[in-house]
Amino acid sequence: MIYLDNAATTYPKPVSVQNAVQVALNKYGANPGRAGHAMSLAAAEEIYRCRTAAANFFKAPGPECVAFTLNCTHAMNYVLKGLLKPGDHVVTSCLEHNAVMRPLQKLSESGVTFTAAQVFPGDNDATLDAFRNAIQENTKLIVCMHASNVWGIRLPVDRIAALGHLYNIPIAVDCAQSAGVLTIDMAESGFDYLCVAGHKGLYGPMGTGMLVTPNGSNLDTIIEGGTGTSSFSMEQPQTMPDRMESGTQNMPGIAGLRAGMEFVNQKGIQTIYHHEMGLINYLYKKLSENKNVKLYTQEPKWPYFVPVLSFNVNDLPSETVSQKLNAAGIAVRAGLHCAPAAHECLGTLKQGTVRVCPSVFSTMNEMNALVSAVQKII
Amino acid sequence: MIYLDNAATTYPKPVSVQNAVQVALNKYGANPGRAGHAMSLAAAEEIYRCRTAAANFFKAPGPECVAFTLNCTHAMNYVLKGLLKPGDHVVTSCLEHNAVMRPLQKLSESGVTFTAAQVFPGDNDATLDAFRNAIQENTKLIVCMHASNVWGIRLPVDRIAALGHLYNIPIAVDCAQSAGVLTIDMAESGFDYLCVAGHKGLYGPMGTGMLVTPNGSNLDTIIEGGTGTSSFSMEQPQTMPDRMESGTQNMPGIAGLRAGMEFVNQKGIQTIYHHEMGLINYLYKKLSENKNVKLYTQEPKWPYFVPVLSFNVNDLPSETVSQKLNAAGIAVRAGLHCAPAAHECLGTLKQGTVRVCPSVFSTMNEMNALVSAVQKII
Repeated sequence: MIYLDNAATTYPKPVSVQNAVQVALNKYGANPGRAGHAMSLAAAEEIYRCRTAAANFFKAPGPECVAFTLNCTHAMNYVLKGLLKPGDHVVTSCLEHNAVMRPLQKLSESGVTFTAAQVFPGDNDATLDAFRNAIQENTKLIVCMHASNVWGIRLPVDRIAALGHLYNIPIAVDCAQSAGVLTIDMAESGFDYLCVAGHKGLYGPMGTGMLVTPNGSNLDTIIEGGTGTSSFSMEQPQTMPDRMESGTQNMPGIAGLRAGMEFVNQKGIQTIYHHEMGLINYLYKKLSENKNVKLYTQEPKWPYFVPVLSFNVNDLPSETVSQKLNAAGIAVRAGLHCAPAAHECLGTLKQGTVRVCPSVFSTMNEMNALVSAVQKII
Repeated sequence: MIYLDNAATTYPKPVSVQNAVQVALNKYGANPGRAGHAMSLAAAEEIYRCRTAAANFFKAPGPECVAFTLNCTHAMNYVLKGLLKPGDHVVTSCLEHNAVMRPLQKLSESGVTFTAAQVFPGDNDATLDAFRNAIQENTKLIVCMHASNVWGIRLPVDRIAALGHLYNIPIAVDCAQSAGVLTIDMAESGFDYLCVAGHKGLYGPMGTGMLVTPNGSNLDTIIEGGTGTSSFSMEQPQTMPDRMESGTQNMPGIAGLRAGMEFVNQKGIQTIYHHEMGLINYLYKKLSENKNVKLYTQEPKWPYFVPVLSFNVNDLPSETVSQKLNAAGIAVRAGLHCAPAAHECLGTLKQGTVRVCPSVFSTMNEMNALVSAVQKII
């Protein structure tokens, strides 16, 4: 099988990640941070190693800024529900995933309003203007994706963050599709909240995500419970990361995530990015030679894109194309990719798109196989 | 090492659980329910197998009643926050874990009130009366644990559920310490919401929990996001289990949990319960012969207890005792076990307790080793 659905989850996982999960099940099998015995301490140390690795990876002030979550969606919810109050306004983009849109929709029931700024692919100035124009007096947060999970379009998040800070508005960045592919420097970029998926570009197991922020203590909580700390108190601890980590954490997953981040560091983010962008750019060119293939963005190039490409074949439902590709042994994803807003933006809400995303393990031969398989569909 | 901290998380995990996790990382490595390609479908089928296994395990109406969560605490929060509105009243017990008390404390900020009914160990009639007396006109939920994670005391949850239904009040049961040890028949017991930890008596990996309920569609949500279903809509789906499962799930963990439940089924819950209760009863008797050991409950016997035993050695801090036991190669947990209410109830808030919980793998020799090690402390 040729696996090109890496935007949903990367596959295969590096051997080091698989080993780390297995070692955690055996060597760190006790509940971390809950007891004083040797294995519980060893488990807590392993969790701390991952926390430290993540803080270094994203240049966060320290490991206490890293809270582990079930996935990126949970991290987004922690930020949005933790910050926004009735009467507040939020600026977001027109390309957002349901991980942002559905919580915002839910918050709108209690009097939070939001404006989705238009994104102009390839024209960051225009995008920035759209964000600026969307800001209101009661805007309390800017939340947007680092890069689109449908179109691969990269948003100028550094400039958007700087814009927000001019108005004293914090920014939360959905890095589900960028972490491990784009360098993220929290301090330099001025991001206030990073929401990250562990199982995509970081090559960790499914069931892992992170909220990275120096401001976690100020977030209201939507989930409280035992944290193994301040146990005498019925109040959720104020301190990070405990505040955002209630109940037993996904110890084997977190150990795998640490190994995944180490894998990315060893390969080098730049190397990974250029490898994958080379493949996706080649694919774009090949597909654009086929008059039956519809492409929706300009040629994906540095620095405006991440390696995610959406296309359709004539007016065929995207699901039909993906089924035919599956029959040819190629795994891609069809439909809306949980991001109807992004499809509305580029007019593909009805047809959806066939989405291709390579990983560090993908090859040029696989791109050629995909191109041939698409040709055979027509 | 003699591991007797199974109330925090069971260790070791059965080989079949470890294998299932590894197979999931390899064979079901794609995102379940998110795409139409073969590996994504295989992953979705594996998730469905676990859902079906859980529904059968707890005698829930069907697999759609099972939502996977990060842990039992998250499941508890989904129920409490999903049901309770300002002005509502809740009846709970005096033994609850912070997984219940902290969310209730949080909800009290928005006008939810609660009453903690006294539990009378060994006198279920008195306990039931306390619950009855705590019910008010605005009581909208009864929430209590099946068995105490500190004292091993079992609550008469079947009778409490029947009581609640007399008054048209639903019941949510925290089965963190009972699932896999006590038979739970949702239909027969009339439980409306079951919250379960996957990594304790079910022998699944850490990072797994479940909310089991036929009423999930009526719960308000605290987390929304992509579900891979109804993707065109910015509203969270109404249907279970999607409603309660936003973002990518812990696929390897869920596969391990399925294997864990199969393991328990193969051993037989009755067999497991009697094995563990035999050990804990023996331990109680041996420790009670030692005049320096403080025991806080009557002899743990069927059907009033689960195999969890708390003790102290004179006035030594429980942490000191657990450190000494750790030095002797025995892993137990000391302190409050995230349940200050339970300690307040029996007067151990200051000292905490040393807690022992065997698993199916524990032996009589290990109990004797513990008894000897305690003797040496004095």
